[in-house]
Amino acid sequence: MLSGTVRNRGKEMSNLHDNSIIIDGLIISNWSRSVFEAMRDGGLTAVNCTCCVWDDFRGVMNNIAQWKRWFSEHDDLLLPVFTTDDIRRAKAEGKVGIILGWQNTSGIEDQIGFLKVFKDLGVGVMQLTYNTQNLSGSGCWETHDGGLSDFGREVIDEMNRVGILLDLSHVGPKTSEDAIRYSRKPVAFTHCVPNGLKDFPRNKSDELLRLIVDKGGFAGFATYPPFLPTGADTTVEDCVDAVDYMVNLLGEDNVGIGTDFTQDQDDAFFEYLRHDKGYARRLVPKGISDIPTTAEGLKKISDFPNLTAAMERRGWPEGRIVKIMGENWMRVLKEAWGA
Amino acid sequence: MLSGTVRNRGKEMSNLHDNSIIIDGLIISNWSRSVFEAMRDGGLTAVNCTCCVWDDFRGVMNNIAQWKRWFSEHDDLLLPVFTTDDIRRAKAEGKVGIILGWQNTSGIEDQIGFLKVFKDLGVGVMQLTYNTQNLSGSGCWETHDGGLSDFGREVIDEMNRVGILLDLSHVGPKTSEDAIRYSRKPVAFTHCVPNGLKDFPRNKSDELLRLIVDKGGFAGFATYPPFLPTGADTTVEDCVDAVDYMVNLLGEDNVGIGTDFTQDQDDAFFEYLRHDKGYARRLVPKGISDIPTTAEGLKKISDFPNLTAAMERRGWPEGRIVKIMGENWMRVLKEAWGA
Repeated sequence: MLSGTVRNRGKEMSNLHDNSIIIDGLIISNWSRSVFEAMRDGGLTAVNCTCCVWDDFRGVMNNIAQWKRWFSEHDDLLLPVFTTDDIRRAKAEGKVGIILGWQNTSGIEDQIGFLKVFKDLGVGVMQLTYNTQNLSGSGCWETHDGGLSDFGREVIDEMNRVGILLDLSHVGPKTSEDAIRYSRKPVAFTHCVPNGLKDFPRNKSDELLRLIVDKGGFAGFATYPPFLPTGADTTVEDCVDAVDYMVNLLGEDNVGIGTDFTQDQDDAFFEYLRHDKGYARRLVPKGISDIPTTAEGLKKISDFPNLTAAMERRGWPEGRIVKIMGENWMRVLKEAWGA
Repeated sequence: MLSGTVRNRGKEMSNLHDNSIIIDGLIISNWSRSVFEAMRDGGLTAVNCTCCVWDDFRGVMNNIAQWKRWFSEHDDLLLPVFTTDDIRRAKAEGKVGIILGWQNTSGIEDQIGFLKVFKDLGVGVMQLTYNTQNLSGSGCWETHDGGLSDFGREVIDEMNRVGILLDLSHVGPKTSEDAIRYSRKPVAFTHCVPNGLKDFPRNKSDELLRLIVDKGGFAGFATYPPFLPTGADTTVEDCVDAVDYMVNLLGEDNVGIGTDFTQDQDDAFFEYLRHDKGYARRLVPKGISDIPTTAEGLKKISDFPNLTAAMERRGWPEGRIVKIMGENWMRVLKEAWGA
């Protein structure tokens, strides 16, 4: 095989991707068998799949009921994840482990007791707020972030107790700092870009990234061009540059991937995401909509092996790649979820 | 008649109370025919009756459906109020006008459109937050008040548009200031005590009281001993002293009454009020529970004429008493509700 061919077809470079636990810390696609197949074809061992954005209790319950049907209908492909052992089992069985995840605690409404209910239904990751203020804190697109509320402290106490990983990706900077300092268990930016690469309200400052790691937490890199300085021209190589920045800042034990893949979503869905509560005022500047949501070389979920291959081409040690592509995720999930 | 007798039986001093529009800006009693009769016996022309504290949309709807049944069952006593003309009609017909009121915007959940729905059902007054943070802002018992949220601005815009009076009595100081400055229509502390009389998180600073009046708004005095320096010893005379303090600070055109009467409520109800969301952490210091919730001479709603009588004994001009007991309320309601 010619090296030129190898360079263009990353997934054939080695067996590293196929042999490793590969975890995507955030996908919010338009779920279907076609997307589930793409996750398998991309060699994904486990995925944090968003099932709550602006939803209330009943809305999330409907979404979870749908996921339970999908688990049954597509049990050749999918394996519901409750523990990190389930993720290892998914790897052994050649299936995709599904971690149900929320991007907003709107789904518990005002009931702390619902956290345990949803944990038992398979929700393993919850973002405290999505872009704006809720009962627990503020979001990254709020004019003023007043920080973690007293109710938010109670929510984090219970998430720590029942074993739900706290995600702060779309949370405001003050609320994030308060939550990182308050949580007794490691917390995560599941899908983010450093503000050091592009100054943007949704990106994370070096200080906040260091703080989350100092407290035992973790940062997943979002392969999402609107957050990156390269914008519409972003390639998989630019993504590896960004991961490199994060590794230099945080160490190779504390970085992972959370792509934010929105495969098969339509414009109406993005409008829903970009307005408060899904319908109120617009949150995200209009220009952002013009930038593609995927990078060249990572257009589809099934392109996932290209990311591993690009890291291999850099000559990164296998140990580092394996950590970033999944093992670091395993550690933080295990610590957040408990035994 | 001996003057000593007159002094002890204020309601017989003059016909001023009976001939005036008397408005209580906040009652949160355990509603029953007995309470409705007490309101009539107390000479009340209109009352802001709380039908939402920690309730969600469905909970408030249940409460409103119950009020609709009461309006029908007790139509000899009650008259539902939509406009200030309804209040004048209640006076003419010898009935008690009922303004449905909320102490928390929890009842709209995340739907701004529900404000118009509830306005059309008779909800004329809404407090933005009750003691703690919600989607719109923060409360007076929150550790940190981050101020009015962007969603809160949208809520106030819509309350201004559809004609719902914004109440800030239990709202935090920063959120209150933001809301007073933001609202295009007059807003109110429907039931409050000045912090100048007793330093207490639920009481209002002179600066904030002046600001609400400067912006065309209004402050109702709460005859609630736990907020007053006289505590358990509070009498109706102490209440008039407090009103006097407010009149000196704000002028006689900008002060009213909002008693906070909790007639026939049991301990469980106070526990519900004093915990976040009705069940979570305790908000109000334990000692407060030991202080009676009513003042000597104003033990029951039917004692309302004693307040007017106490003002008359001070030699206050009739014009001032009539304003404080109801006409100021009429002005602010008319401005907030529109034509």
